[in-house]
Amino acid sequence: MIKLKKREELKKNFSTWLNEIIEKAEILDIRYPIKGTYVWYPYGYKIRENILSILRKLLNEKGHSEVLFPLLVPEEEFMKEALHVKGFEDEVYWVTHGGLSELNVKLAIRPTSETAIYPIFALWIRSHADMPLKIFQVVNVFRYETKATRPLIRLREVTTFKEAHTAHASKEDAEKQINEAISIYKRFFESIGVPYVVSRRPDWDKFPGADYSMAFDTILPDGKTLQIGTVHNLGTNFAKTFEICFENMKGEQEYVYQTCYGISDRAIAAHISVHGDDKGLCLSPLLAPIQCVIVPIIYKGKEKSVAKSVEKVVDSLKGVRIHVDNSELTPGNKFYHWEMKGVPIRIEIGPKDAEKGTAVMVRRDTGEKKTVPQNDIRNEVETALDAIQENMKKDALKEMASKITDAKTIDEVQKILGEKGGIIRTLWCGAEACGAEIEEVLSAKLLGTTGESTKGVCSGCKKEAKQVLLISRSY
Amino acid sequence: MIKLKKREELKKNFSTWLNEIIEKAEILDIRYPIKGTYVWYPYGYKIRENILSILRKLLNEKGHSEVLFPLLVPEEEFMKEALHVKGFEDEVYWVTHGGLSELNVKLAIRPTSETAIYPIFALWIRSHADMPLKIFQVVNVFRYETKATRPLIRLREVTTFKEAHTAHASKEDAEKQINEAISIYKRFFESIGVPYVVSRRPDWDKFPGADYSMAFDTILPDGKTLQIGTVHNLGTNFAKTFEICFENMKGEQEYVYQTCYGISDRAIAAHISVHGDDKGLCLSPLLAPIQCVIVPIIYKGKEKSVAKSVEKVVDSLKGVRIHVDNSELTPGNKFYHWEMKGVPIRIEIGPKDAEKGTAVMVRRDTGEKKTVPQNDIRNEVETALDAIQENMKKDALKEMASKITDAKTIDEVQKILGEKGGIIRTLWCGAEACGAEIEEVLSAKLLGTTGESTKGVCSGCKKEAKQVLLISRSY
Repeated sequence: MIKLKKREELKKNFSTWLNEIIEKAEILDIRYPIKGTYVWYPYGYKIRENILSILRKLLNEKGHSEVLFPLLVPEEEFMKEALHVKGFEDEVYWVTHGGLSELNVKLAIRPTSETAIYPIFALWIRSHADMPLKIFQVVNVFRYETKATRPLIRLREVTTFKEAHTAHASKEDAEKQINEAISIYKRFFESIGVPYVVSRRPDWDKFPGADYSMAFDTILPDGKTLQIGTVHNLGTNFAKTFEICFENMKGEQEYVYQTCYGISDRAIAAHISVHGDDKGLCLSPLLAPIQCVIVPIIYKGKEKSVAKSVEKVVDSLKGVRIHVDNSELTPGNKFYHWEMKGVPIRIEIGPKDAEKGTAVMVRRDTGEKKTVPQNDIRNEVETALDAIQENMKKDALKEMASKITDAKTIDEVQKILGEKGGIIRTLWCGAEACGAEIEEVLSAKLLGTTGESTKGVCSGCKKEAKQVLLISRSY
Repeated sequence: MIKLKKREELKKNFSTWLNEIIEKAEILDIRYPIKGTYVWYPYGYKIRENILSILRKLLNEKGHSEVLFPLLVPEEEFMKEALHVKGFEDEVYWVTHGGLSELNVKLAIRPTSETAIYPIFALWIRSHADMPLKIFQVVNVFRYETKATRPLIRLREVTTFKEAHTAHASKEDAEKQINEAISIYKRFFESIGVPYVVSRRPDWDKFPGADYSMAFDTILPDGKTLQIGTVHNLGTNFAKTFEICFENMKGEQEYVYQTCYGISDRAIAAHISVHGDDKGLCLSPLLAPIQCVIVPIIYKGKEKSVAKSVEKVVDSLKGVRIHVDNSELTPGNKFYHWEMKGVPIRIEIGPKDAEKGTAVMVRRDTGEKKTVPQNDIRNEVETALDAIQENMKKDALKEMASKITDAKTIDEVQKILGEKGGIIRTLWCGAEACGAEIEEVLSAKLLGTTGESTKGVCSGCKKEAKQVLLISRSY
């Protein structure tokens, strides 16, 4: 019998649920003595590594090379791009002392790496033949957040910032790169089973220094949206600031066209939040540090036969990430523990199973229980892992779709925001003043525009609509 | 015919050679505008990743869990361990400002992570059952170096610090852990073909806060030693400072016994330096981003047959890290380029090879050239990669052994230091005053003692010798 996941508790009190599960499932230790910085436990670290290896693979396949730039940026470089500085000056940490003496030059700790990377791009790029230049790095970045911090979502040390930076010989190539980046990110979020919408951020909310910004958002169980990825077209703004030029086909010097795009710890927050339930984590097989836990059910006098079956099952599951729980806990407590940890499959083997050459296989996502022959266990587990991966994705997509609602007027938007939250699609004239008013009236955020063509009137000013607009309350 | 590697130029001017090859082979870009911090190029980054994956595997096999702690340490925690503070106070970077305002609490950027990790160990450890606790992380650490910095060797941002930290329920267990750590590091350096000596550092040169420190040193081509790994027995020093206690078998509270051990970017410096030659890098197959480069030798009218052979060879080399150089350079320039980059094997395929179904295979380490059948290329390449791996290790060991010399008197030591450098083995009484005098007279460093039992007189004070002492000029 398939039981559906219970998510009542989680939905009622999502924020507490998230903080608790992050600690209880040993993803992060939240007791580190600096606000907004946390410790990755071994279990959490493995989830992080599994997520990163998916992302790395996708980027490598599309010709991005991994590099590593320094953490610190000299004040002069950091202060060069005026809009960028304005966007980050309230958030950047400054290193002022080395040992017991004051530094001659203050050093910024990167809040993002444009100002570290682009002076070097200016050295790497000479001619059109050096492009496209596509690099990425996975680093820690720092933001002096004054708002309330929360693990994986609002951090002072973002430990897992994957940032890509590209340079191109034409505006068109940069535009194509934006599309490639979006398609890589789509594949990434699909791999980890996190549904998303992509929109173009309003101009007043774009990345400081960009021509425009595209963003990925998902909806968390409390109905608020979480920005989980961004893709920026930088035009020639930074190229002009950092003098990144190339000799074009005609032999003339020209500024390069740049893009950058990033994904952070929030991808992990999204996966946890979208798939978790009242029992705890529910990890997709691709991300799970343990894909299959084996729980021997021991009765006195039958230890040997069970142990032999366990050994056989372990042998046939080579290549699957398994763990045999031989701890002192009762079977019930073990079940509870590994469900909480989100392990996709549990295999129970008791004396009767040992006798009959069977095992009981339980799926974390659906609770489905099934007796399977030990001889066929590899096939059964692999099939189930695939099914879980697909089912989790499908489930999350369905849930997300149910939280996207159309509305014609601001009153309607207001009502939906209050009742079910999520993302509301409405029409917009595209004027900044009108957008600002909508945001104020709703105390909600214009996520962005979808680029769909449309007819009708703006839900704000009632003038002619030019855009489909997404609105939400957001993290 | 096997040509021996030429290392005359390299040895004559090692320091320049190293800086140049790091830049030319695109390991690091040394033009980043902060002294002692550098940019990892894609090629260098891959070498780094390959080295790290060897080290991670060895640590995982011995039950170490990977974790990740924050970069920043509150001043109060950092200042707790008096000896540790004394050791690092001249070198630590301080963050004093967040955004435009001054922080209430100054934050140290980790020069190493004891003070970040151990307050959390105090929360993780409750009873003897929680031990041994064995964790490691790969992080960047910072030292405000006032001496001359140099890429991979003396850095302000050490980008690749693998630090392990363990806690144990008894002194004996900690002692055993020291041995395990040494044996892991031995295997690591053997894997990457870097010869070493292990010694116990004199007391005045141990890690700040340790009971004692063991260190791995190798000898660079200029005869100076480079410390490439350290293993510290911390006793209960940090446990007392950070109140890391456990309930022992008798139900009493007791301080834990700790060890820590680290390896940095210097492992990469050592590999490059020990194996390089006048042509450039010579990378061991395990570390090489490209294990085998294929150079098509194109003559007009014969393009197709060569291309077909190349395709066939590429197909049969699946799983080997290969690169086909189809660039516009002349074959000679390609040979030169990939030799400089240290690629272990080059395969040349010209029209005659295509006709005969052969290829020319050239080894980077020995220059050995061999015509091999295309049908057997996989076997030939795999055999050659193994042979190169072994030969490089053997060669380096031989060279290192030739640079370790015995001496009976300080005059002899002095003479050897001046003529050939390397490591000099001599006898020592073990007294600090005598050791200090030896260091002063020689302007050289006591590396440490080997633990061998010995008879004879101290080369310094002529009193009874208790130790075999290693002396060198060091980086």
